[in-house]
Amino acid sequence: MNLDDMVMISIDDHVVEPADIFEKYFPKSLMDQAPRLTAHPRNPNVQAWLFQDTVVGSSGLNAVVSWPKSEWGMDPTGYAEMRPGVYDMDMRVRDMDANGTLAATLFATFPGFAGTHLASLPDKKLSLAACKAFNDWVVGEVPNAHPGRFIPLGIIPFFDVDESVKEIQRLAAMGCRSISIPETPYGVGEGYPDFKSGYWDPIFKACVDNNIVLSLHIGGGINLVKRPEGFNIDDMLMLTPLISTIAATDIMLSGAFRKFPTLKVAMSEGGVGWVAPWLDRLERHIVNQSWTGASFLPDGKTPTDVWRKNFLACYITEPSGLNNRDHLGIDTIAWECDYPHSDSTWPNSPEVLKTELDRAQCTDEEIDKITFGNAARFFDWDPFAHIPREQATVGALRARATDHDISETSKTEYRRRYELTNS
Amino acid sequence: MNLDDMVMISIDDHVVEPADIFEKYFPKSLMDQAPRLTAHPRNPNVQAWLFQDTVVGSSGLNAVVSWPKSEWGMDPTGYAEMRPGVYDMDMRVRDMDANGTLAATLFATFPGFAGTHLASLPDKKLSLAACKAFNDWVVGEVPNAHPGRFIPLGIIPFFDVDESVKEIQRLAAMGCRSISIPETPYGVGEGYPDFKSGYWDPIFKACVDNNIVLSLHIGGGINLVKRPEGFNIDDMLMLTPLISTIAATDIMLSGAFRKFPTLKVAMSEGGVGWVAPWLDRLERHIVNQSWTGASFLPDGKTPTDVWRKNFLACYITEPSGLNNRDHLGIDTIAWECDYPHSDSTWPNSPEVLKTELDRAQCTDEEIDKITFGNAARFFDWDPFAHIPREQATVGALRARATDHDISETSKTEYRRRYELTNS
Repeated sequence: MNLDDMVMISIDDHVVEPADIFEKYFPKSLMDQAPRLTAHPRNPNVQAWLFQDTVVGSSGLNAVVSWPKSEWGMDPTGYAEMRPGVYDMDMRVRDMDANGTLAATLFATFPGFAGTHLASLPDKKLSLAACKAFNDWVVGEVPNAHPGRFIPLGIIPFFDVDESVKEIQRLAAMGCRSISIPETPYGVGEGYPDFKSGYWDPIFKACVDNNIVLSLHIGGGINLVKRPEGFNIDDMLMLTPLISTIAATDIMLSGAFRKFPTLKVAMSEGGVGWVAPWLDRLERHIVNQSWTGASFLPDGKTPTDVWRKNFLACYITEPSGLNNRDHLGIDTIAWECDYPHSDSTWPNSPEVLKTELDRAQCTDEEIDKITFGNAARFFDWDPFAHIPREQATVGALRARATDHDISETSKTEYRRRYELTNS
Repeated sequence: MNLDDMVMISIDDHVVEPADIFEKYFPKSLMDQAPRLTAHPRNPNVQAWLFQDTVVGSSGLNAVVSWPKSEWGMDPTGYAEMRPGVYDMDMRVRDMDANGTLAATLFATFPGFAGTHLASLPDKKLSLAACKAFNDWVVGEVPNAHPGRFIPLGIIPFFDVDESVKEIQRLAAMGCRSISIPETPYGVGEGYPDFKSGYWDPIFKACVDNNIVLSLHIGGGINLVKRPEGFNIDDMLMLTPLISTIAATDIMLSGAFRKFPTLKVAMSEGGVGWVAPWLDRLERHIVNQSWTGASFLPDGKTPTDVWRKNFLACYITEPSGLNNRDHLGIDTIAWECDYPHSDSTWPNSPEVLKTELDRAQCTDEEIDKITFGNAARFFDWDPFAHIPREQATVGALRARATDHDISETSKTEYRRRYELTNS
């Protein structure tokens, strides 16, 4: 397969919420208490969201796309400094075209990847309203404004199980394909019940009943791993993927797949290399450590059976990741872009991806599965419903974006352009 | 290669200290304060060590070898219930023969795999004496009593850096090849300084100067990973291998290999599958996240260079583990037995190992490297100094043990035999 003939779907991209979503979607009766933008306490030149007396901004490292590396870092950043595609979905689609990305899911920023920030705030009625407002935008507005370009993924008010079930039903009716929930709920705030507690069962049931995929994105769970004093950002960046192993172990051992044999779980951003040793250990565990009497598997199923039926792993770039694809099952591996975060390969994703697919000697059939087919099947989302395949390829999308500037651009230059546009 | 022609060295076996080692090796002037055996507070029928007013016993799960699985568990156990090879080194050698194991390292039990229990006690003079007494036995006595069967591995009084350096020098003079240190020192007790603190530098220097390998065995580090309330033993057993990734990241990012380019680190019991994705991420990290200014590598070296020169991974059974051997470097992978712990493949290690080597289509040269060559080179220990290769093979060793009973045996039967022998 030629690079230009690939079709690419990312099941893990991120969005910084545009400034007006709460004006548009927060309940009118509560508008005076809606999240609003304010000057960031650590840098008055950039914005942060003020909601329920708590201020939270955007870390620069989560919006680095197209910045020179000398400007990367954890300092807060704001709209003026960001590449517009980070928060402006018209520009996002142009950036996706330039990268050959047909479609993507959008994980939240201000609410938390899985709504954890909203869950941490005291007034749950307001947090529920903010959750729904975000969903109205990210599931209700964006995918419909750009047909065939976004796989709808929402968040839930997981601090309230009944409201979560209602929101899943509401989201499903809007065409939503997945919800993001905390990968390790017992690490959120004061600690929510874990997956085996029963707390999540009505949520799992609602997902199964409505054919909604659970997305477990690594993030806050890293706080569960105690680090030494004075550890640095390198340490955190290297260890964060471990959370996928922890989260997958949690949900596997919880018995969720015994109770809900059709529950689907996408592991976001943890990569793919961890899966084979984890399955090896789990397969041996149930035989070798049979004394524990663990009964978390559906009757007659092995851990590998469950992995192949109920899980999808995704990776950004991982040269060795595909060498164990027969061990995992080729149908369980998907690509992701992670735009606009620091791990992203944008705007060279097709080149990075194709080099690794070729190095692993993937067949055309395997390439199609990894780059889009597995994600489309798992999320039950037709990639060609709005855009026929010949217009959905890397080559076709990039041909539409030849005039689109993807060069390295400094924060100062972005600010200059922003002020020109918004003055 | 035929199974019987393999040579097998395990760089991760364990020993339960025999009852008399402190009588033999604790300083006479302090003998009234030496560790002594007492009834276990949770089960008066088994022993525990009493030292500095603290009682610690042996978990059954760390002595399961040859027990029926129905008797496995975390309950404490004692000499009478254990297979004699667990604590009696004459019998251990017979068990090694029966498993085709030419040689093994012995990690401590009562002192802690890395001496962490001794470090946790208040009287450091007594803890130092116990550390030296254990080393006198495990390094001074056992390998000399059974030439060519044990690769000498000691512990150090890491709570005192000066004494640790002296002990490393003393151990080296005794022929010691490796010391076991805590894999995540900041998780030990109230927390010792981590590898980048400088605290460990004199210890690292002494190892380099004396050609001693650091062994980082996973264990106590699991306490760094916060688990939800009511988590079970399956959870712990599945997640413990993650500690190898954490420990390897710690020591790699610490700059230890920049300061001590010939420092050698054996990662014990973490398996091998985690290494390829970890190296992938680290290789990308130093390029993609260059903004952090991390400078932990020796000049001109990549993370993979450092891995291949300075590390050895080992695995027990891991069917997918060898698929990425070219990515890691074939010279960085070793086998381990983990006798007498629950993860061990004894007495079928040759069969399990050979099946996986064949499945991965390893050449004879690769098999020799994995089963003994890499360990021998890395630990700079000549496997055939005392026993020529033709007498060191699985077939030759097993031929000496055809009369040795390796059948499943209950605790009750072991107790019956023990009481017969010791009455």
